[in-house]
Amino acid sequence: MNTTQAQLGAVLAAGGPRLTRMLESTESRLGEVAKGHGLELARHAGGTLFAGGKRLRPMLVFLCAGGGDDRLVAAAASVELLHMATLVHDDVLDRADLRRGRPTVFADGGRTAATATGDLLFSRAFAELASTGDPDAVRALSVASSALAQGELMQRADAWRIDVTPERYLERCRLKTATLFEASCRLGALFGDRPASPHSVGRFGEQIGLAFQMLDDVLDVSGPPERTGKPRGTDLLDGTVTLPLILARRADPGLDGLDSDLTAAEAELICERIVATGALEQAREQALGHVARAKLEVERTDLPAERRRALELVADGVVERYA
Amino acid sequence: MNTTQAQLGAVLAAGGPRLTRMLESTESRLGEVAKGHGLELARHAGGTLFAGGKRLRPMLVFLCAGGGDDRLVAAAASVELLHMATLVHDDVLDRADLRRGRPTVFADGGRTAATATGDLLFSRAFAELASTGDPDAVRALSVASSALAQGELMQRADAWRIDVTPERYLERCRLKTATLFEASCRLGALFGDRPASPHSVGRFGEQIGLAFQMLDDVLDVSGPPERTGKPRGTDLLDGTVTLPLILARRADPGLDGLDSDLTAAEAELICERIVATGALEQAREQALGHVARAKLEVERTDLPAERRRALELVADGVVERYA
Repeated sequence: MNTTQAQLGAVLAAGGPRLTRMLESTESRLGEVAKGHGLELARHAGGTLFAGGKRLRPMLVFLCAGGGDDRLVAAAASVELLHMATLVHDDVLDRADLRRGRPTVFADGGRTAATATGDLLFSRAFAELASTGDPDAVRALSVASSALAQGELMQRADAWRIDVTPERYLERCRLKTATLFEASCRLGALFGDRPASPHSVGRFGEQIGLAFQMLDDVLDVSGPPERTGKPRGTDLLDGTVTLPLILARRADPGLDGLDSDLTAAEAELICERIVATGALEQAREQALGHVARAKLEVERTDLPAERRRALELVADGVVERYA
Repeated sequence: MNTTQAQLGAVLAAGGPRLTRMLESTESRLGEVAKGHGLELARHAGGTLFAGGKRLRPMLVFLCAGGGDDRLVAAAASVELLHMATLVHDDVLDRADLRRGRPTVFADGGRTAATATGDLLFSRAFAELASTGDPDAVRALSVASSALAQGELMQRADAWRIDVTPERYLERCRLKTATLFEASCRLGALFGDRPASPHSVGRFGEQIGLAFQMLDDVLDVSGPPERTGKPRGTDLLDGTVTLPLILARRADPGLDGLDSDLTAAEAELICERIVATGALEQAREQALGHVARAKLEVERTDLPAERRRALELVADGVVERYA
């Protein structure tokens, strides 16, 4: 058992049998979703949905809700579907062959199948949430969905730009990752039977979302590939300038050779140079700052102690994943 | 004034000042939608939304509704947004540089911008409809959206396959085009203050959607490019086998040379050979059959005479466009 699994086990234990049951219901819903749209879409969508995601976003929905009815499961399925939709489209744009060590839809079915599969998952996400009959919920998902598109675009606009500021990087993390974490928490608060304030759990979600993305970017530089399921320096090869490189350039101004004909071996060398500057520790430190702020937000809620504890475990889980 | 404009003028006259007002409100809504997601998305989404679409789907919403409140405008905006989202993604997959004689988002901003713009328009479509607070409405849009993805995929799966059956071609038209026409009509019936039966107007929408797509495919072969805004035989160059070619092969079995290194000049020659078989007239005939069935469906509704007349004018407009 690796640290992530151990950490998730702790969250599940803290969440009790109700959390486990709701996550199981979410799996059933996701299983239904892929059906009924033709065999090819079913294969690609099903393959994507069951490729070993950790269901972190559904878990946030449930933990922020306490308990509730079927609308919670619909909300949990919808955030996972939206997440999957963006992954599938990102893989098309990155021409990525592997994700979590498995072939992507793009690799398996080509660009068209992957674009259509992403579109299907998008529409299913909104259909799931619409079944709750709550326009505020659909609006929350739509805000997150627009932010994801905007973040993706911002990342491409910044590609190969070595002069990206830390502030702009952070805004990108917010759009690309934190808004969907925030929406997950808000949806939980919206449908929960003993809900927390949507505002405070939303901020919790945003902060751990930021930490999650920042640590993901650290992992891309640190590796090892066996852990990440992709080669070291994949971001560099895509021209994506992230916090480790931004910070490393302060200590090693020679780090300015990012160009589009970078080889995998050269990317690996740049990773080594980034490591040598201590930038990974600095980036991790900043991410831990967001985790700490997330925990502060949890303390500010009026949630019962055991649910605060479970949310704090999720926050720690984000860090442990990269320990 | 061309025939399309004249025909739309007749529909507007039949629909009265209320229809005109509602279409104007839809334009305002669409103008709002593109804002607030960053400048680049605003430019691409705005450019797409105001590139001269005929607003046929919004018009169907209003005509099937009679009258109603703001929810109708939200529904009209949502079907147009979904339509635009799929056009933008289709242009990425087709690597199309021109649409309606103007540069596509793909040509203007590249693949990433176009994928993100399409995703944004998707999410805005659902957000608009969610504002109605009606889960049945969001579900109707979601069904159409899934069908669009499935239709797109089916078309790619069939690419370069000269042996596509007329039945399979028709199913593709249904998925790719007719379901969104059907959803537009159903949404009108759902929110109208003197609504028709969703079932009968839905069937009307499906039939004119089928005719619309079939005639669009005829136009690709017949040209002229000044009218379509794209070169003759664009479908052939993409490997998309449509009804004219399917029918033409019965008379001219030598028409089997469709391959991926087809040149524009060769595509033009194939178009001429298709024309020579009389297949365009046959395909037009089949499309007219769907228009006739659409009109029958209108007669079966309990709509007032002037609204039946307006819907029949829309049906005629689909044909006139290609006269």
